[in-house]
Amino acid sequence: MSVSRRTFARIAAAGTAAAVASPAIAQGAVKWRMTSSFPKSLEGLYGASPTVARLVSEMSDGKFEIQTFGPGEIVPGLQVMDAVQNGTVECGHTYSGYYVGKNPTVIFDGSLPFGLTARQQNAWYMFGDGKRLIDEVYDGMGIVSIPMGNTGGQSFGWFRKEIKSPADFQGIKMRVAGFGGRVMAKLGVVPQQIAGGDSYPALEKGTIDACEWVGPYDDEKLGFNKVAKFYYYPGFWEGGPMLHVLVNEKKQAELPKAYLAALETACGEANQWMQAKYDAQNPPALRRLVASGTQLRPFPRAVLEAAEKAAYEVYDEMSAKSPHFKRIYPDWKKFRDEQFLWFRVAELTYENFAFTASQTVK
Amino acid sequence: MSVSRRTFARIAAAGTAAAVASPAIAQGAVKWRMTSSFPKSLEGLYGASPTVARLVSEMSDGKFEIQTFGPGEIVPGLQVMDAVQNGTVECGHTYSGYYVGKNPTVIFDGSLPFGLTARQQNAWYMFGDGKRLIDEVYDGMGIVSIPMGNTGGQSFGWFRKEIKSPADFQGIKMRVAGFGGRVMAKLGVVPQQIAGGDSYPALEKGTIDACEWVGPYDDEKLGFNKVAKFYYYPGFWEGGPMLHVLVNEKKQAELPKAYLAALETACGEANQWMQAKYDAQNPPALRRLVASGTQLRPFPRAVLEAAEKAAYEVYDEMSAKSPHFKRIYPDWKKFRDEQFLWFRVAELTYENFAFTASQTVK
Repeated sequence: MSVSRRTFARIAAAGTAAAVASPAIAQGAVKWRMTSSFPKSLEGLYGASPTVARLVSEMSDGKFEIQTFGPGEIVPGLQVMDAVQNGTVECGHTYSGYYVGKNPTVIFDGSLPFGLTARQQNAWYMFGDGKRLIDEVYDGMGIVSIPMGNTGGQSFGWFRKEIKSPADFQGIKMRVAGFGGRVMAKLGVVPQQIAGGDSYPALEKGTIDACEWVGPYDDEKLGFNKVAKFYYYPGFWEGGPMLHVLVNEKKQAELPKAYLAALETACGEANQWMQAKYDAQNPPALRRLVASGTQLRPFPRAVLEAAEKAAYEVYDEMSAKSPHFKRIYPDWKKFRDEQFLWFRVAELTYENFAFTASQTVK
Repeated sequence: MSVSRRTFARIAAAGTAAAVASPAIAQGAVKWRMTSSFPKSLEGLYGASPTVARLVSEMSDGKFEIQTFGPGEIVPGLQVMDAVQNGTVECGHTYSGYYVGKNPTVIFDGSLPFGLTARQQNAWYMFGDGKRLIDEVYDGMGIVSIPMGNTGGQSFGWFRKEIKSPADFQGIKMRVAGFGGRVMAKLGVVPQQIAGGDSYPALEKGTIDACEWVGPYDDEKLGFNKVAKFYYYPGFWEGGPMLHVLVNEKKQAELPKAYLAALETACGEANQWMQAKYDAQNPPALRRLVASGTQLRPFPRAVLEAAEKAAYEVYDEMSAKSPHFKRIYPDWKKFRDEQFLWFRVAELTYENFAFTASQTVK
C-alpha cells in the first residue's frame, strides 16, 4: 500500500480544516476475520460480532475492518478456540465453557455453577483478580481473551417430562454446556455437548430428552417449545455467563495500539449491548411462550439444594485434579462470597420489594 | 495547524509498513474540556471522566484529548448542565436528578423512585424507547446526553436517630437528590439539594439531620459514619441511577465522525467500568463501616410501602403538571412493569437461592 498523490492532497487540506477535519487517512489498513460459535439467527449472541466490527470501523474511519462469520462458514461452532490458536482466523467470539475438556480452568472466564452474576463477573474481572488470573490461563495457549457479552441469568431448560424431585433426572440425556454438565451428571443426567443450532433437531428426533440454551428470546427462536412442554428456571450453572472474543496472541501483537484500544473498548460496549438486548427482549418472548402453552416452572428447592451439593463435589474434584484450578478457585470463591453477602443488602432488598410490590399498587 | 515535512515523511514510511503501521497522523487534533459534578476524591464517580479521556486518547492516537475537571475548578458541581448549555465547556459528567427543577423529565435519564435497576435502565435506553424519548427531552436544550456510569442500587442513607416508622421522618432535614426529595417531602422530610462534597460539613454542623449519597465505598470516603450512626437500605429512589456526559450540541456536530464514535464507545465502557468498580469495592467498605460501629438497618416494610405510595402520588402530580412527563411516563412504566415481572423469574430466583444458600453450605 502506498500513499497516493491524492491522499497527500487530502491530508494537506485536512491540516487547514483543523478540528473539524476527518481523521481518515488511507494508511494503516487492517483486515481481520472473526468467527462466531453462535448461529446468525441468534442476533443477541451472534449480533455482538457485527456490533464490534461496526464500532472499530467507525472509530478507525474504516481502516480497521473485521469481517464476521457464523458457525460452519470457516470452522464449526465448537472449534473457535482451535481456529484462533492455529491462526486460521485472527479472532473468534465464543463461550469458554465449550473448552473445559481442553483446560478446565477456562471456565473462570465464563460461568461456574452457583457462581457470579453478570455484574459480579464484570467486577471480579475488572477490579478483582479475574483478569490477571484469566490471562494466566490463556497465556500458555497463545491466545488472549477479551470479555464480549453476557446473557444474564439463564433458564434451566426444556424437558419433555415434569421434574418433581432430583430422582427424575436419572438417565435423562440433556444438552448442557460447561460445568453444568458435570454437575448434572452427578444427579444422574447424561450430559451432551451440542452446538446451539444443532440442539433443536436433536431434541426433536429424541437423540436427547432435554436441553438448555439461554433464555426465552433465544429458546423461542430455536423452537424448543414445539418439542418440549416444561420450561424450568433458574439455570444455576449460568447465573451470568461471560462470553469473549479470543484473539490470536501474535496477531494482537501486530495490531497498531490505537486499533487494539478500539477493539477492547468496542468489546466493552458489546458486553453491555448484549446484556441490554436480552433484558429487553426476554420479557415479551416469555409472554409469547407461555401463551403458546409452555409450562413455566421454578425448580423445587430440593432440586437446587441437590445441585448445589453436587457443584461443590465437582469443585473439590477439579481442585484435586488440576493444580491450576486449585490455585484460582479460592480467589474466585472468596470474591463470590463477599459479593453474595453485599448484594443481599441494597440490591436484593430493593429488588425483592420493588419487583413484587409494584404489581399490587398500580 | 499545518502538516510538516517530518509528518509527510512519517506518513510515507507508514505507508510501506502496511498493516502494522501506527495510524497516528498529526492532524485532526481536537481538545475538549469535561467538567464533573463529582469530587475528585470519589474515584468511582469522578474516575469515569479520566477513564473516558484515556480511552478516546488511546483510540485516536492522542489526537482527541479531553481535559477533565472537578467541581469548582471551572464551575460548581451542580452547574454542569448550564456550563454545557452555554458552551463554557464542551461536555460535563453529571446526574440528571440535579436538574429536575429546570425540567422534571430529565429524571428519566437518571433514576425514578421504585424504578429500573442498572441493567434495566440500560435495556430501556438501548432497546426500549429510552434513548429516543430522552433525546427529545434534551433536544430543546441544545445538549446531547450519553450514558456514562451507574452506581447500582444505592443505600437509603445516614440518620442520627433510628427510624422505626414513617412518622419518624417528620421534620428531618435531609440531603436527598432527584425525585427522592419529592417523595420524602410527602413523608414529612425537608429535602435539601447539596453537592456531594458539601454534605459532610452540613451533616457535621447539624444544618441537616440526615443525608444520602451512594453506598458504602463513597459514603465511607465522605466520612458520614463519623457523624451519623444509623445506615439504612435500600435507597428506593435510586435502584440503578444512570449518570451521563452532557455534550454541547453544536460542539458535538463539529466533532469528526470517528471521534464521536470513540467518545460514545468510551462512555459505554465507562458505564460498566463504574458499575464494576462499585460492585467490587462496596463489600469491603461495608465491612469496615460495620466494624467501626455503623448500625446497618433494613427499612421496615411499612416505611417502604409508605414511600411507594408517596412515589405514585408524585408521578400523578408530575403528569398533571408536565405534558412532557405525562407522555414519557406510561412508556417507562410499561417497560418497568415487564422488566420487574421477567426479573422475578430466572434472575431473582437464582439470586435469592444462591446468595443465601451458599453461605450455609461451605
